Amino acid sequence: MQITILGGGGFLGRKLAQRLAQEGTLGGQPVTGLTLFDLQAPASLPAPFPVRCLGGNIADPEAVKAAIPAGTDVVVHLAAVVSAQAEADFDLGLTVNLHGTLAVLQACRALPAPPRVVFTSSVASFSGGQDARLEDDARQLPGNSYGAEKAIGELLLQDASRKGFLDAVNIRLPTVIIRPGRPNKAASSFVSAILREPLLGLETELPVPEDFAVWICSPRRAVEWFLHAMTMDTGPLGLDRGINPPGRSATVGKMLSALAEVAGPAARARVRHAPDPAIEAIVGTWPASFTAERARRLFGFSEQESLEEIVQAFIEDDLAATRAERGL
Amino acid sequence: MQITILGGGGFLGRKLAQRLAQEGTLGGQPVTGLTLFDLQAPASLPAPFPVRCLGGNIADPEAVKAAIPAGTDVVVHLAAVVSAQAEADFDLGLTVNLHGTLAVLQACRALPAPPRVVFTSSVASFSGGQDARLEDDARQLPGNSYGAEKAIGELLLQDASRKGFLDAVNIRLPTVIIRPGRPNKAASSFVSAILREPLLGLETELPVPEDFAVWICSPRRAVEWFLHAMTMDTGPLGLDRGINPPGRSATVGKMLSALAEVAGPAARARVRHAPDPAIEAIVGTWPASFTAERARRLFGFSEQESLEEIVQAFIEDDLAATRAERGL
Repeated sequence: MQITILGGGGFLGRKLAQRLAQEGTLGGQPVTGLTLFDLQAPASLPAPFPVRCLGGNIADPEAVKAAIPAGTDVVVHLAAVVSAQAEADFDLGLTVNLHGTLAVLQACRALPAPPRVVFTSSVASFSGGQDARLEDDARQLPGNSYGAEKAIGELLLQDASRKGFLDAVNIRLPTVIIRPGRPNKAASSFVSAILREPLLGLETELPVPEDFAVWICSPRRAVEWFLHAMTMDTGPLGLDRGINPPGRSATVGKMLSALAEVAGPAARARVRHAPDPAIEAIVGTWPASFTAERARRLFGFSEQESLEEIVQAFIEDDLAATRAERGL
Repeated sequence: MQITILGGGGFLGRKLAQRLAQEGTLGGQPVTGLTLFDLQAPASLPAPFPVRCLGGNIADPEAVKAAIPAGTDVVVHLAAVVSAQAEADFDLGLTVNLHGTLAVLQACRALPAPPRVVFTSSVASFSGGQDARLEDDARQLPGNSYGAEKAIGELLLQDASRKGFLDAVNIRLPTVIIRPGRPNKAASSFVSAILREPLLGLETELPVPEDFAVWICSPRRAVEWFLHAMTMDTGPLGLDRGINPPGRSATVGKMLSALAEVAGPAARARVRHAPDPAIEAIVGTWPASFTAERARRLFGFSEQESLEEIVQAFIEDDLAATRAERGL
């Protein structure tokens, strides 16, 4: 299996690459090569197969073609400008999130055989807000440019699948917690920060009320879903290439309780209330819950673990590296 | 009011231009100028205001900027590659229907004040087929590239409206009958042909069974809807810029009965059955009915007239010109 990860320098791309390197196989087949592509060439990693690391712009058709050579079986397209950044710089959002996905489509179409494409769409492509519990056929009515561009990317890859140019699975990722590293430009950055920063011994701000609910998943679960989507039988998907995976609906208060449970009340006390209407205006339109029946029953996507397990997993997987990265 | 019609050389653009020229006003305001833009510069028409006729490629940002000068109040974006053509030439469909709409977005965004944009989306952006009766919040799951590109155009203009770059109304047009002129490359071309060709004294083929239902509207009604959308209050639309207008669900058999009613049984006898699975595969995925409650109740879009009136209107408005054009 020849695999390409676009956005392979990001935290999910990196975790997926590490997992592939550990396993050496995908869906029972040996991995014969991995290409990691990002704006800056990602660092390589030890693996039982060759790893190519390329730097380039996802909106540059030639760079993307170089990252998806003949013989590519699976492309995981994680490259994106995140929500608050796409909102602040409309043109950058279009370039990366729309023209980038077009470049991926054309590079895949140029291959001799249509590759599997796993595309990360987002909960941000939906509206509905706090009271919503969305069915699998819910309409995507995005309230932010990032979400609009993700919904557009889904339509492009879905139509390209129908045409036989590629074979897409569009996973609408929940808000992924706990992200390692530093706060980023996603409007949802705080959802990780309120757990990560206290675990690092740092104070942080909560821009929404404690009863604010978020549709979340863990990095571990996201990687499991990617691996599943990379080899699952797509025949039964039919025209509809969108998957709402079985995340978890949790209030910020419940997340902070899980933090206190795992790391003690002192950790929780490091979170200060600091309402931010600009952040709430973006994340407040995202639905807080999905039924996710199709992903569960028909397609075997695995269930999200508990909040306590998510906090514990961050401590096991990412706390030391995040401390080191941030010089703490 | 400064108005631009993109696709102003097409049959609906032409009818809209003629109507504006007759009225001289739009929404009670004098029309002060009209730009007609198409691949080939449209012929001018007599009007109580200046008419500019420009030729250019809708995917060329500079050409589109020239067609949407400073001071433009309303843009009607009808320029498109139609369904069967977009299906046959994937790249042409993307160029015209996606990059074209991006060029319109950027040209409008460059104006000092955001213009109203009336965009013609399509019933082809939905699935559901013969048994569907779609609610206003139905998901767009297109089964053809044209429909996918129209759904993408809606997302782009909807997000640009939210950003305040323009002020869009996305009208999902039913299949418009009776189109004048010649058969075209739309998969739905036959729906007009089975009425128009017999009225011209010509034989024609019906590629679907007589109980096949289609969601239709007349050219007269489409022009009324455009005029309404060009000046309606868009505030109550909120985030959702999509309008399913109140068309009519009619079987092909009912259309042929209306033809016989208006033009006699000899006209109807000119339609031969000739099943075409390729055509049915495209149009068979389009829903045959919509509730269209939002357009009717909240936004005052007018009701579609009867099938007999549609046949009669073609005879009044377009039969002589179509005869002349086709040398009949």
